[in-house]
Amino acid sequence: PTVAACAASGLTEFVGVCEFGNTQGLVIANLDQAIHEIMGFDKKYRSLGIIGARTGAGPQIMAADEAIKATNTEILKVELPRDTQGGAGHGSLIVFGAEDVSDARRAVEVTLDNLPKFFGDVYANDMGHLELQYTARASKCLTTVFGAPEGKAFGLILGAPAVIGMLMIDAAVKSADVDVLDYGSPAHGTSFSNEVFITVSGDSGAVRQAIIAGREVGKPLLAAWGQDCPSAHIPYI
Amino acid sequence: PTVAACAASGLTEFVGVCEFGNTQGLVIANLDQAIHEIMGFDKKYRSLGIIGARTGAGPQIMAADEAIKATNTEILKVELPRDTQGGAGHGSLIVFGAEDVSDARRAVEVTLDNLPKFFGDVYANDMGHLELQYTARASKCLTTVFGAPEGKAFGLILGAPAVIGMLMIDAAVKSADVDVLDYGSPAHGTSFSNEVFITVSGDSGAVRQAIIAGREVGKPLLAAWGQDCPSAHIPYI
Amino acid sequence: PTVAACAASGLTEFVGVCEFGNTQGLVIANLDQAIHEIMGFDKKYRSLGIIGARTGAGPQIMAADEAIKATNTEILKVELPRDTQGGAGHGSLIVFGAEDVSDARRAVEVTLDNLPKFFGDVYANDMGHLELQYTARASKCLTTVFGAPEGKAFGLILGAPAVIGMLMIDAAVKSADVDVLDYGSPAHGTSFSNEVFITVSGDSGAVRQAIIAGREVGKPLLAAWGQDCPSAHIPYI
Repeated sequence: PTVAACAASGLTEFVGVCEFGNTQGLVIANLDQAIHEIMGFDKKYRSLGIIGARTGAGPQIMAADEAIKATNTEILKVELPRDTQGGAGHGSLIVFGAEDVSDARRAVEVTLDNLPKFFGDVYANDMGHLELQYTARASKCLTTVFGAPEGKAFGLILGAPAVIGMLMIDAAVKSADVDVLDYGSPAHGTSFSNEVFITVSGDSGAVRQAIIAGREVGKPLLAAWGQDCPSAHIPYI
Repeated sequence: PTVAACAASGLTEFVGVCEFGNTQGLVIANLDQAIHEIMGFDKKYRSLGIIGARTGAGPQIMAADEAIKATNTEILKVELPRDTQGGAGHGSLIVFGAEDVSDARRAVEVTLDNLPKFFGDVYANDMGHLELQYTARASKCLTTVFGAPEGKAFGLILGAPAVIGMLMIDAAVKSADVDVLDYGSPAHGTSFSNEVFITVSGDSGAVRQAIIAGREVGKPLLAAWGQDCPSAHIPYI
Repeated sequence: PTVAACAASGLTEFVGVCEFGNTQGLVIANLDQAIHEIMGFDKKYRSLGIIGARTGAGPQIMAADEAIKATNTEILKVELPRDTQGGAGHGSLIVFGAEDVSDARRAVEVTLDNLPKFFGDVYANDMGHLELQYTARASKCLTTVFGAPEGKAFGLILGAPAVIGMLMIDAAVKSADVDVLDYGSPAHGTSFSNEVFITVSGDSGAVRQAIIAGREVGKPLLAAWGQDCPSAHIPYI
């Protein structure tokens, strides 16, 4: 970003972009009342923090969950377009509400700062992707999106194309005593993406064990068409 | 289109293609009764004009609105696949009904003729696209699709990925006194596309002012990853 | 597939991949009870056969229908993501249930073996695709997905982008006396794909005639932007 970034940085609402997932963060100090009304946002949140991406929903949601822990903001909207720029999964739109613009801005900054970490256990090639996410303590973004029990360990085990996810989720739940919160498949809980996933909760060690079991079975399956599937960043689980 | 176009032009139903959006126009003189029935079309419209595209819905809808003004046809169907050939938005399928095949054909021709103009305020790069549309006088296609008041000025302000659209719509409504008709977001009023948009109505000057305000804030945001975002044709607003 | 295929083939659950549609087949001998429950599968089917693809739903469904005829299995799930790796159509996830793992494995093998045939009347270029499918005797996979009368001739006539499908289905029903079972369009019976299709049943000769009529009108339309549209394999209809 050179010439163009200069142009965007002239806007007070622009917070930044992240190369991971082609993510962008913005802030609106005083949302217009007409937009408050059509989108159904509580008017006490006069400031918005906004995160959006062409590629990736899980990493952005995980990073936003960290931002919710660190700031005085609420999650107003998490929507998942069918995107990934020709890939098998989702993009994302996440809206934080705050009474003060500095809180909204801080939430966006914390999300962008944490985002690279949560691409660490995304493994991708031309055939699809695996995504694993873990936190020892889920907060309100994960509660809103996945119904995760707040303050407990949470995990996401996801494979795309969906066929791969089917084996990953079975391997995950067989490997450890975890509670399955929900699942996603092309026609259930996704935006017709080519994914199967489960979300799990429970004892921290068990959640990690389930995630690792899913990951280890997913990697050779995603590589089975002949392409390796490297991590998008640095694995953290 | 050389060899292949010859083959298609041998079909009496083929009207033409347009390079903008990879759009194609067809006509069916006497639709089979079985298709009338399964698709629920009124049988008095024995002739159909059909427009379809891989990329773009707004431009085709705007051009079809011009066709409705100019011909004795009705809009029977407007459907928006999640497409754009790997991009963030929609494709389109628009069906005109007519009692006479010459009217159906004329509607398709007028649509194809007007289509390039309405790609004039589409700005795109690898990261996404902006789309702005304006007419001084909405007709029945815009009424059907967006609930636009007939005969009044109408505007569309759209940004993709959705994060960019959020700021564009706020800037638009802050800049002028317009009525917001509806909005679209990945999970509301779209086919899970990675877009946020509003449709607006009102005084002609105010509608234009809102559109221009949205456009000016959208351009630097779409360029913020480092790629410029040129118009797909010649800006008309 | 060299190094990577070795890795996958070390998994007892891995059955194979097929280059057509980037399809993969797996088997799970004893599905975990937690997955049985969240996905709502009858627990008597303790073994699953799983087929999934980034590209193509019709060919995989047709091949799975052959597998149902040849094995002691049931169809538990057929889901169609909006995929095709940037194209206009669907991917697929098909789950067979069996009481015995050898039946589940056999169903996956038969599906993979039959898959190339059913890509024979898929015609594609950068603009879209045509898909034609025919069987003299529909079985339970086609019954489940399309409501096809079991044991009768069945046909699928599909064009993408949707505009092309509109003319193909009209030409098909005009050419022969067939029963139209259902249709798909971007907003009806698809996952927002850019397709229009019908499914037909009836006398074997009539079904074939309808399919061929649809195919012949579709080819020049898909080529009308200037690219030829070759078969993905060897035409069989």
